[in-house]
Formats: sequence, structure tokens, C-alpha cells
Amino acid sequence: MRIYDIIKKKRDGLSLSTEEINYFISNYTKGNIPDYQVSALLMAIFINKMNERETFDLTKAMVDSGDTFDLSSIRGIKVDKHSTGGVGDTTTLILGPMIAAAGVPFVKMSGRGLGHTGGTLDKLESIKGFKVELTNEEFSKIANDVNLAICSQTGNITPADKKLYALRDVTATVDNLSLIAASIMSKKLAIKSDAIILDVKVGLGAFMKSLKDATKLAEEMVRIGSSYGRETVAVVTNMDEPLGRTIGNALEVEEAINTLNGKGPDDLMEVCLTLGSKLLVLAKKASDESNGREILLGTIQSGSALEKFKQMVGLQGGDVSYVEDTSLLPKAKYIIEVKSEKKGFVKSLNAEQIGECALILGAGRDTKETKLDLAVGIVLNKKVDDEVGKGETLAYIHANNLEKGNEIKERLLNIYNIGEKNPELKTLIYREIH
Amino acid sequence: MRIYDIIKKKRDGLSLSTEEINYFISNYTKGNIPDYQVSALLMAIFINKMNERETFDLTKAMVDSGDTFDLSSIRGIKVDKHSTGGVGDTTTLILGPMIAAAGVPFVKMSGRGLGHTGGTLDKLESIKGFKVELTNEEFSKIANDVNLAICSQTGNITPADKKLYALRDVTATVDNLSLIAASIMSKKLAIKSDAIILDVKVGLGAFMKSLKDATKLAEEMVRIGSSYGRETVAVVTNMDEPLGRTIGNALEVEEAINTLNGKGPDDLMEVCLTLGSKLLVLAKKASDESNGREILLGTIQSGSALEKFKQMVGLQGGDVSYVEDTSLLPKAKYIIEVKSEKKGFVKSLNAEQIGECALILGAGRDTKETKLDLAVGIVLNKKVDDEVGKGETLAYIHANNLEKGNEIKERLLNIYNIGEKNPELKTLIYREIH
Repeated sequence: MRIYDIIKKKRDGLSLSTEEINYFISNYTKGNIPDYQVSALLMAIFINKMNERETFDLTKAMVDSGDTFDLSSIRGIKVDKHSTGGVGDTTTLILGPMIAAAGVPFVKMSGRGLGHTGGTLDKLESIKGFKVELTNEEFSKIANDVNLAICSQTGNITPADKKLYALRDVTATVDNLSLIAASIMSKKLAIKSDAIILDVKVGLGAFMKSLKDATKLAEEMVRIGSSYGRETVAVVTNMDEPLGRTIGNALEVEEAINTLNGKGPDDLMEVCLTLGSKLLVLAKKASDESNGREILLGTIQSGSALEKFKQMVGLQGGDVSYVEDTSLLPKAKYIIEVKSEKKGFVKSLNAEQIGECALILGAGRDTKETKLDLAVGIVLNKKVDDEVGKGETLAYIHANNLEKGNEIKERLLNIYNIGEKNPELKTLIYREIH
Repeated sequence: MRIYDIIKKKRDGLSLSTEEINYFISNYTKGNIPDYQVSALLMAIFINKMNERETFDLTKAMVDSGDTFDLSSIRGIKVDKHSTGGVGDTTTLILGPMIAAAGVPFVKMSGRGLGHTGGTLDKLESIKGFKVELTNEEFSKIANDVNLAICSQTGNITPADKKLYALRDVTATVDNLSLIAASIMSKKLAIKSDAIILDVKVGLGAFMKSLKDATKLAEEMVRIGSSYGRETVAVVTNMDEPLGRTIGNALEVEEAINTLNGKGPDDLMEVCLTLGSKLLVLAKKASDESNGREILLGTIQSGSALEKFKQMVGLQGGDVSYVEDTSLLPKAKYIIEVKSEKKGFVKSLNAEQIGECALILGAGRDTKETKLDLAVGIVLNKKVDDEVGKGETLAYIHANNLEKGNEIKERLLNIYNIGEKNPELKTLIYREIH
């Protein structure tokens, strides 16, 4: 078998055999195939696509490229969650504690990733002392003790995905359904939870711009998860505007803590309840979703979800006083108010553009080497469908560099699309696939 | 401008601007863009194609990537010739001396290339002492003295093509019309001859398998050449079976010398006369093609073409006695006869498969590092449309390794497709484009 022939086959629009996909992934992982051949193959896959069977084989080959992580030492039905990525998405930090408080082990291993803000791990590092690197034993022990552990990937999990993702990122081959599905699902499947919930974002701030594409991706991922015997459910949610009111690392941690205190923004809370109630049904803790919602709301009202979060922070080496008093979290030097220059309604608020603003402020990574500024970001005072008066505050910019802050102020004024009231209210949850 | 955006644009099927193509080629040549991004772009170009304007821009950017070679120090209307590559194609070694003997300077700078046999330069090295590396001054002087010089590329001509070709070769992105046209024409245009004749091969042993594709390639190249003010003509010729009777380096030199002695195979002679008569018209040495043919045949009958060949060999350091006595050329240890096991007519003789046999014997290069065996090869005693009796000799294998030779014997017996007489005789010259 030669990689040349595999490239040629996909170039000509043919489907690759299971053996060919295995050959490609295992040899690329071992360093036997150079990047320049793989990038040609990725482009051929991007343009000519893969069918369902190929996508399944690709996922399996990627799982098999490295270690798997057995969760059998953790008691109960373990659940995992993944979001395809959006702007201001703090869901994990709220959903995890609620699920854990409901008595279901929520275990998540994350990468750091590139993006407008850091990933969940980066955000958690806003809390002094919080340790994201755990040994397998520490991870299992914490999960058993408090039902909640969030750490960085341990060991050599899906090395093929790491290499492929780095290459896709620089060769314009990221936004392909099969490649996205295989990348996400291989990581989820290598960590052997019992149930998986997928938050598939759609809209201006997501990989998937159309509901049709997002639905196809969700269906593909659910199919792959189910074929591995995992309970897998996907929810397609709106990412036209940022989720919640904050974009930034420490700012999002603060918002998560506020939400666990019952003072979170409606949209963020609604996404958490939607995903969480389905998870509780999958984990057989709720009889149905409406029962699941009641249980989750109970964990907020009783303070047990916040308590779970504190316990996890404590066990992972973090300073719990930061959770009790969020004013201890890293703070930016400047807070710049953005005031509306006209009256009307917020018609749209492009999440991708807002994300770019956060990135410019220093909240995210452009390259792997970028050091994050955990303090900076944006707080949205007005969101889509909100009424705005002239001179009213649209947003606050948290900046450590005044010049950049003022540049972002101009940008935000342009991003806020203010005019007539939209004929229909925005939709937050589009559909569910299982 | 970023290469990422250029890849994305072509990935999405859009056409690239002149500036984008220039950016890509000049930065790749300088080493500012890694191979893995360029191979993704090449695959996107392969699948989504380039339009005429893009192909023209690509050619120009490749010419501009390095030095050009000015032929003004050589007197007269200089002509150049290129073949898109076939099996057993010895045309240059016959056409050059005939044209030179007719009083027109024939100047050719060749690469060595990968293939079933070596290139023209490799073949010439069968003659003891023949020097393919000339300085610009030597090249001009020899061309002025005898109207004929064939040497390797001097200086830094089309470095972009060299890098791109090496990458295309390993990423299954060779057989694309725009990429082939730009590669060939950039090299022809960088060497400033006045007229160019292109021998576009079509058939089983050529890049272009269909007459339609070959015609499109020919048209594209003629358009590019003409837009540079060069007299450019293309002839589409048959490469279903090998041209002439020999495949191999020294064997082809011997065949060329035999042809210059008036004892060449009909098909090889006919291709030389067709290309040559058009060249003489372009160079204003012949009133029309039929006059051109007379002149060329005259150079054979008078021995002046052979004399030109000898003069060139002498001036380029070669031992002229090798031309006078071809038994001095490198000889293989074994000559194995391949005898027909049935009677009938040769229906087909797949040129590509025959080429592979020559490669296995050691006549060609698999990788740049392969050392050629100049002596080995195949002599075809029977060609398509020939009648064959049982036990009659189909071919002779010239081998230095008996085991390989016997393996090739089996292969050749399978390649010779013998049966009923074909309903129509083969066509050698399909069409002309100018």
C-alpha cells in the first residue's frame, strides 16, 4: 500500500477502504508519511468528501492511534459533554457542577485549543492554584469523591488528531463535516464515558454556518457514538450571537459562578438545562427531561451545584476563596463603556466578530505559543432583541491596553446592528438528535 | 496577503488573482511557504482547476521566479522543441541534427527527469566523454559553430517549477492541464528561442490519455507561447505503443544514429519529418511543409544531418568514433529473445507497460537518486498491426541481470496483445494546433 495511491483515489472522488484509512492514520501518526502528502489528501477529502463508512473508519483509526482512558474505576454512569465551539460558551463550568450535584459523575478531559478565548482549562486557571494536569489516579479519585473532575488530556490520547488538526488549521481544511466529526468523536470515544452529550453550535460564530450542515454533523456524530455503544445525544444550538453576557477567561468564570448562584443570563442557563436534563435521562437519574430540569434547578436553589464546583476547585489545588469572592479573580486595568449612538433594537451581534475583538484584547490564542491575558474581555449589556436608548450602555470592554481597548470600542459600535425590531424573536435551541 | 486565504479561495472553486498567483510562486520559491501548504493548494487547483488567465499568470510567475536565458548571441531564427513525454521517444536526437543541417539553429536545454528511460541528456551520455553541462558561452559558441547544441539547464531557470514538480510528483497532482502547461511553457519561455514546436503525446503511454485532453493541453500551450510573441505550434501524436523500435538509453542513441543513416523505423522518421517540416516553415527556411520535408530528407540522403550530430558530439567532448561505430556503445550482458506463442496480428502494445519493463531492467529513474543502466532496454521486433507467426521473435530484451530479464520476458508476452487484425490501421499524427 502506498500513500500516493490513496491520495490519487480520493483525488478522483473514490471512497477509501478501511485498510487504506488505517494505513494513512497509523503511518502518519508514526511519522512515516510527510505532512505535504497528508495535506494533499486532506484537501482531496475536503473537496470530494467522505461517506459515512469512511468517516466511521477514520474515527476508529484515530481512536486506535493512541491510548484510551478507561473510566471503570469511577463508580456510576459517567457522562461527558462536548461543544463544537462558540463564543462566550461557559456551559461546561455550570453544567458539570449541576450534573455532579444531581449524583452523576461528570468527567471531562479537554485540550486547550486555539480560539477567541482560551478553552475551559485556561478559564479555570483564572482561579489561583487550580491544577489542570492530573494523573489518572488523581482524576479518578476526584471524580469518585465529588462526581466532578475537569483536567487536561493525560497520556497519549488520539495523537493522530493532534497532528491532523495542526495541519488542517494551516491548510484551510478544518470545516469539513467528516473531518470535524472524526476529530471530535475520536477524542470522546478514547475516553470511555457511558454517555455523551454534544452541543453542536450553528450560526455566525460557529464552524457550521447553516442549520442543515449543523444537523448533518450532529447526525453523523450521534451515529458514530451509538455505533460504539455509547448513549449519544446532540443538541443544535444558536451561535449567531455570543452565549451569555461575557467573553473572556476570568470574566466567564465569574459568570459561571454567578449562574451557579442563580444569577446567570437566561440563554446560558437555558442551554445548560437543555443539555443537562438530557444527560440526567441518559444517566437514568431523571424519569424524563422535565424531571431532569427540576432536579437541575434544585441544585442551583439548594446551592449544591456551587458546592460541587467549590469541592472540585479545592481538590484540584485551587483557592476556594476565589469562588466565594469573585473580585479576587484577575481584573483588567481599564473598563471602557460602549454607549449606543442611536436608539432602536439590537438586530444582530455577530459572534465571530465579537470573538475577534476578545482575541485582539488578548483573551485568546492566535498560535499555540500565545500567552493568554486571563483578565481581559467583553461584557455585553445588550443582546439581540434588546431595546436600546441613545446613550445607553451596550457593552463594557475590559482591557489592559488602553489603545487596544479604544480600537475595540469602535469595532463594537459597528458590530452592534441596531434598528427596527426583528420580526421574530431569536431561537436558542434548534433541535435534538439521537 | 496570506497563503491560507489563497488556499481557501481555490478550495472553494474561485479563481485566483494575478497578485495571488505571484505571491504564491515568489514566496514558495524563496522558501517562505512550507510544502504542506503548497500541496494543499496544488490539490485544490487539481480538483477545481484553473482558468486560462490563471494558467497564463502561473506560467509567467514561474518564468519570473528565476533567470531567463537570452539567445541573442546565436545568429538566426532559433528553434526549440519539447515533447510531453512518451516511451522510446528519440525524436530530439534525429530532429536536431536534421534541422541544424538545414541551416537553422536548434538549441535545447533539457532536464533529466524521472521516467521509464533517462532523458535526452542521459541518452547522450552513452557516448564516451559527452559533456552535457556547458557554460552559457560554450553553449552559444557551439550553437553558432554547428547550429546544434543540447545541454542541461544552466543557471537558475524556473526554480519554482523544480520545487513544484518535485511536490506534484509525490502528491498525485501531476496530471492537471494547467499545471502541466505552466510547467512546460515556463521552461520553454525562460529560454528565449524564436520558435517552439510541441510534441503533445496522447495515449496509453502518455500523461494525456484522451485526444480531447491532449488537444486542450496543446491549445493552452500554443496560446501561452503565442502571447509571449513566440511562434508556437503543437502536434498531437500517438503514444499508445512506444515510438520507434527501441526503449533504453544506448539503444535509443543507436536507433537515432541508424535513423540519421537512413535506416530508421518509419514511425519515428514520420514524427521527425512532421515536426521538422513545421519548424523549417516557422524558421522561414521552407516555403511550405512539403518543401520542408524535401529539405529534411535531403539532409539524411546527403549525410549532412549525421555530420551535424558528429560535429556536436565532438564539440561537446564526446568520442565521435562511437557515432561511426555503434558497437562501441554500452552493451548489456544478456540478450533474451521473446518468441510469440501464437500467430495473428499485434493488436496493441501498451507503451506504459513496456516503459515499466524498461524501468525494471534499470533504464529509468524511480527517484532522483537512481543510477541509470545505460546499456539495458528493449528492442521491439513486432509492433502494432504487424503480422506474427508462432515462434517468431516479438522482441529482444537487453539485460544485465538474467533474473530480471526473464521476469520481463514473461511480462512482454502478456503485453503483446495478439489476435485478429485490427479493423483500422493505427494513426500516428492526430492533429496540429497553431
